[in-house]
Amino acid sequence: MTDNIATRIKVGIVGGTGYTGVELLRLLVRHPHVALAAITSRGNVGTPVAEMFPNLRGWTDLVFSEPSADVLGACDLVFFATPNGTAMQMVPELLAAGVRVVDLAADFRIKDVALWSQWYGMEHACPELVEEAVYGLPEMNRDAIRTARLVANPGCYPTAVTLGLLPLIEAGIGDISRIIADCKSGVSGAGRGASVPMLMGETGESFKAYGVAGHRHWPEIRQQLSVLAGRPVDLVFVPHLLPMIRGIHATLYAEGVAADVDVQSLYTRRYADEPFVDVMPAGSHPETRSVRGGNHCRIALHRPPSGDRVVVLSVIDNLVKGAAGQAVQNMNLMCALPEAAGLDVVGLLP
Amino acid sequence: MTDNIATRIKVGIVGGTGYTGVELLRLLVRHPHVALAAITSRGNVGTPVAEMFPNLRGWTDLVFSEPSADVLGACDLVFFATPNGTAMQMVPELLAAGVRVVDLAADFRIKDVALWSQWYGMEHACPELVEEAVYGLPEMNRDAIRTARLVANPGCYPTAVTLGLLPLIEAGIGDISRIIADCKSGVSGAGRGASVPMLMGETGESFKAYGVAGHRHWPEIRQQLSVLAGRPVDLVFVPHLLPMIRGIHATLYAEGVAADVDVQSLYTRRYADEPFVDVMPAGSHPETRSVRGGNHCRIALHRPPSGDRVVVLSVIDNLVKGAAGQAVQNMNLMCALPEAAGLDVVGLLP
Amino acid sequence: MTDNIATRIKVGIVGGTGYTGVELLRLLVRHPHVALAAITSRGNVGTPVAEMFPNLRGWTDLVFSEPSADVLGACDLVFFATPNGTAMQMVPELLAAGVRVVDLAADFRIKDVALWSQWYGMEHACPELVEEAVYGLPEMNRDAIRTARLVANPGCYPTAVTLGLLPLIEAGIGDISRIIADCKSGVSGAGRGASVPMLMGETGESFKAYGVAGHRHWPEIRQQLSVLAGRPVDLVFVPHLLPMIRGIHATLYAEGVAADVDVQSLYTRRYADEPFVDVMPAGSHPETRSVRGGNHCRIALHRPPSGDRVVVLSVIDNLVKGAAGQAVQNMNLMCALPEAAGLDVVGLLP
Amino acid sequence: MTDNIATRIKVGIVGGTGYTGVELLRLLVRHPHVALAAITSRGNVGTPVAEMFPNLRGWTDLVFSEPSADVLGACDLVFFATPNGTAMQMVPELLAAGVRVVDLAADFRIKDVALWSQWYGMEHACPELVEEAVYGLPEMNRDAIRTARLVANPGCYPTAVTLGLLPLIEAGIGDISRIIADCKSGVSGAGRGASVPMLMGETGESFKAYGVAGHRHWPEIRQQLSVLAGRPVDLVFVPHLLPMIRGIHATLYAEGVAADVDVQSLYTRRYADEPFVDVMPAGSHPETRSVRGGNHCRIALHRPPSGDRVVVLSVIDNLVKGAAGQAVQNMNLMCALPEAAGLDVVGLLP
Repeated sequence: MTDNIATRIKVGIVGGTGYTGVELLRLLVRHPHVALAAITSRGNVGTPVAEMFPNLRGWTDLVFSEPSADVLGACDLVFFATPNGTAMQMVPELLAAGVRVVDLAADFRIKDVALWSQWYGMEHACPELVEEAVYGLPEMNRDAIRTARLVANPGCYPTAVTLGLLPLIEAGIGDISRIIADCKSGVSGAGRGASVPMLMGETGESFKAYGVAGHRHWPEIRQQLSVLAGRPVDLVFVPHLLPMIRGIHATLYAEGVAADVDVQSLYTRRYADEPFVDVMPAGSHPETRSVRGGNHCRIALHRPPSGDRVVVLSVIDNLVKGAAGQAVQNMNLMCALPEAAGLDVVGLLP
Repeated sequence: MTDNIATRIKVGIVGGTGYTGVELLRLLVRHPHVALAAITSRGNVGTPVAEMFPNLRGWTDLVFSEPSADVLGACDLVFFATPNGTAMQMVPELLAAGVRVVDLAADFRIKDVALWSQWYGMEHACPELVEEAVYGLPEMNRDAIRTARLVANPGCYPTAVTLGLLPLIEAGIGDISRIIADCKSGVSGAGRGASVPMLMGETGESFKAYGVAGHRHWPEIRQQLSVLAGRPVDLVFVPHLLPMIRGIHATLYAEGVAADVDVQSLYTRRYADEPFVDVMPAGSHPETRSVRGGNHCRIALHRPPSGDRVVVLSVIDNLVKGAAGQAVQNMNLMCALPEAAGLDVVGLLP
Repeated sequence: MTDNIATRIKVGIVGGTGYTGVELLRLLVRHPHVALAAITSRGNVGTPVAEMFPNLRGWTDLVFSEPSADVLGACDLVFFATPNGTAMQMVPELLAAGVRVVDLAADFRIKDVALWSQWYGMEHACPELVEEAVYGLPEMNRDAIRTARLVANPGCYPTAVTLGLLPLIEAGIGDISRIIADCKSGVSGAGRGASVPMLMGETGESFKAYGVAGHRHWPEIRQQLSVLAGRPVDLVFVPHLLPMIRGIHATLYAEGVAADVDVQSLYTRRYADEPFVDVMPAGSHPETRSVRGGNHCRIALHRPPSGDRVVVLSVIDNLVKGAAGQAVQNMNLMCALPEAAGLDVVGLLP
Repeated sequence: MTDNIATRIKVGIVGGTGYTGVELLRLLVRHPHVALAAITSRGNVGTPVAEMFPNLRGWTDLVFSEPSADVLGACDLVFFATPNGTAMQMVPELLAAGVRVVDLAADFRIKDVALWSQWYGMEHACPELVEEAVYGLPEMNRDAIRTARLVANPGCYPTAVTLGLLPLIEAGIGDISRIIADCKSGVSGAGRGASVPMLMGETGESFKAYGVAGHRHWPEIRQQLSVLAGRPVDLVFVPHLLPMIRGIHATLYAEGVAADVDVQSLYTRRYADEPFVDVMPAGSHPETRSVRGGNHCRIALHRPPSGDRVVVLSVIDNLVKGAAGQAVQNMNLMCALPEAAGLDVVGLLP
């Protein structure tokens, strides 16, 4: 295979020790058009990434380094796989240096800066960039992503929910004041920080809801659905924790969809040209494992016996289409690479 | 400990090789007022039950036997832990012999025999007994259970959903035409039959909905909620399969509950004297593991930000309160034993 | 049921927020002869234990308190479910006050104090008590336990390995210089402390060895096997981490067992009167789930085709026979209660 | 990317409905030099493979077909992913037609046909081909594989064990009469047939040994180790079942390795040029997840304190290096393709 390393884009990753970081690496070490220039971690300077993540042994010799303006500033594009509040400290300088940025955290997702501060408990360091940032859901914003300097990569739940409801809401169908999103996520969504509640002894062989009183993805979902509707959308969002590692399943309940609306056709048409959204045959039950490790969102539509309701089932791998895969998809768009480059991963089943 | 074996009630189990069978045994071998007289399995005559279920080694010397009218007819009470359609073949004869019966299958749960036939795909063998059978949910029918000859033990999902909605509906609160029950069950709910879809290779590390187009527990839930309401209730019921063994979590969405209704008090009062229903503090998130192996149903109540909705979280162990434990509770009531006898099992956490 | 609370022994638990703590509570809240007087946790004073461990809701009203000499000194017996190094600070005072002690940590397990310091990385606070402490494996030391003031409750791996090899070594059979113990444990053995390696995202759906270069249970196992043999025993001990919560499986390889030795009879005879050791029929494969939640050790014996080797399979629940259950068994012996009191828990299968 | 479909080799799969079948498909649909010509399944003729395995939706339009001599005979190479005993019925005809074959079942693995019949319980249909078949472990037989007409793809356990011991035995180091292989496998190794013992309700959250009295991979391992040694090797082989889906971990105990043998260097040198064997730094503990979905075998070496023993830890994904991945590696060698083509899959961690 011919590979002119000189033609590859130079990519940096800030904060590579969490699950989104190792997932970016899993995808990028095989990406045919990317050269990894740097991966940073203040706490692990000098450690080979393959020592922390042995699945990468043989795939990369990268070593964690200090976040350095010089090194990152020489990249074409930088991913932030950092905790919330970190990217906003460094992004202005990188943009000024001509580097394009995809933030996998939440710093630039919420357009209403005051609302953001309320949910994330801090002041925003660069509110002027929030307006400019493009919400990185290609199925909504493909063209804007292509030319964006700064992309806010969507949250995992918002991706599964928004893709699951987009055709309905875009078409103005259904009662947008009474949507229910009953969502279930694997534990990797909680990240790789040490904590008692995420121990296997606590999460294995058990199931529970959490954050019913309020979850940060709720305002994000409302914002995106409202953009689609052109007016405020309301929804009840109940997240649950699954005793497994990867996968989100959103079970979505929409009311007021007249019996003569052919939702199957509506969805099939809307997503016909989307490389990573699969509308399954009517009556299907998508399994999270069918997208494990892959960048697809699979959707199935159901009409319960009683009248005007639609049940949408939407599954993604929270670390791929819900995080690192979508970030790579955004990078591909921003850098005029084939949209699916590096994302040719078949779901791991079984 | 004084134990006069002569005062124990004689109990038989028909069909003891499935998960509800072994669960009945787990509870009954320790029950202070029960003497196990027989356990039947046509396919395993002569096999010690402790050979098939080694957790019972040292607890019982019982051997699987042929279902025999003589032996079963000499029991005070017989449990049927058989596939649907078996109990109805044998129950008339046992009742005639003065034996009382708890059927853990679905033969006597649905009062509308035509509806039953439609969902279970067979003619009913003794429709005249369906009317007499008491639906064995003690929280609804305690007094009737005490005197019943024949108890239809509720399904697992119906138990979790009915207990989760009972106080609201009984009080006439909420819109009973628009209830949503988003339910999740561990794999043991599917039983112990050989099947590809229930292999660990198929169900492990994955999550999906199933039966959205129609599930046999849907008419059962509707029936019971309608009894509570005194008029027809409608609901959307979406079951999902969890990658774990035991536990059901019902996430219930009720609309039209005025903001000034104090649901926490309503539930606390309604269940104040119930030995096996635990209303947790407002805002709690019950975990299925908190009831693993035990007979409790734990319930928590939430009010989402938007107006008139209530979210009820209800968890049970599908094999205990959702099957064998409830059956023992019913037996205790029928035989005037302490209601909690043999059910003093603390949830296995972790 | 007659229950004179005045005749119950008064029991305290120091350090009740870990897995051995909640497991002690699970067993003791149902124990017919125990009154729980206190459970301490410096970090959670005032918190009801049932708030931290909701499986205990309805079973106890205990609240975590400061470790207090007054309260603990008024107990008949105190369990230490603390990290290594804590019990030895408090035990002398309690013994002086006439309180008997069972330490579930490692402070008093190793008779060679210098060796203990080497493996546990600290000076011993009361070396004079190490000699007195009785190693709490009832199958070895039942009589000494009855009269002991201080019992060192065995480690989980040492329990499974020692019970698996005891009849052979006691009988002087086999080559005690070349034993191999290939052991596998569920994650609860690592405790309930926050840590990255024990996250479900790290331990789920994966398997590995750990501590091959040296594990603290290795000197403990060697000590106990050497006591049995009357001379130094050597063994290779390789622990592994299972992607599940409870259970230890020890696969033990013994050499030099002449073909005419009937090991099945040897084990059956040795353990005939043991209430918690079950020698299964020859050729069995014990499953960890058969003892989940229960205090049994199940053992099976195999003779591989080639000559003079024996393979012993030994399973326990690491939190019960490997920790809290054995501690209760020891308490029962120390307090002249029925040895199995409070331990009538059938393994949770499935 | 240029892709001349005409230059791709034509490949058929017989028996594509099991786990090795879907795994072959996962790898082959992305393989740059392969055109899938046919996949057969008598029981599912006409069903799209992506309907049975939804992870393949969008990757292939193949439909299960009858096994047909015409279609298979027109392939360059055919994989058999069938139960034992099927390939031997069809292979002679295919070889005669000039088709090359990789059998993922056991029909051609054991050179001693009488021994094969004893373990597999049937007569061999073409014993004359057993001699010719090349055992498809590239690390042993790379050159012979290149020119083979018929390759017997190794079993999963034999792959992990043989690679783990190869450098030692090849070098004549250690006592080859006293090897112990304590092996652990995920449930996918048992295949996708309906069975009670492989239900999630039976295998989840539990661990056990199985087949200690005799397992079909034992003679296969002995054969391969004996080939390496040039004389008969004996070993004790104890397989265990892990509560997870993918992965084998072999813990290997070798005796008689003098203290001055530098096994780390021995292994590093031996595997220096192997694309799919990774010798980790001394003292490592390979995790099965580090190779999940990938074709690598990772090996680590340990020297227990006591003298002359070596502990080798060897992990593979049983469905990849232990089955389909190794089959593709063999195909690549047979067809003069790059050995790693289509196998560029990074282990899925977490």
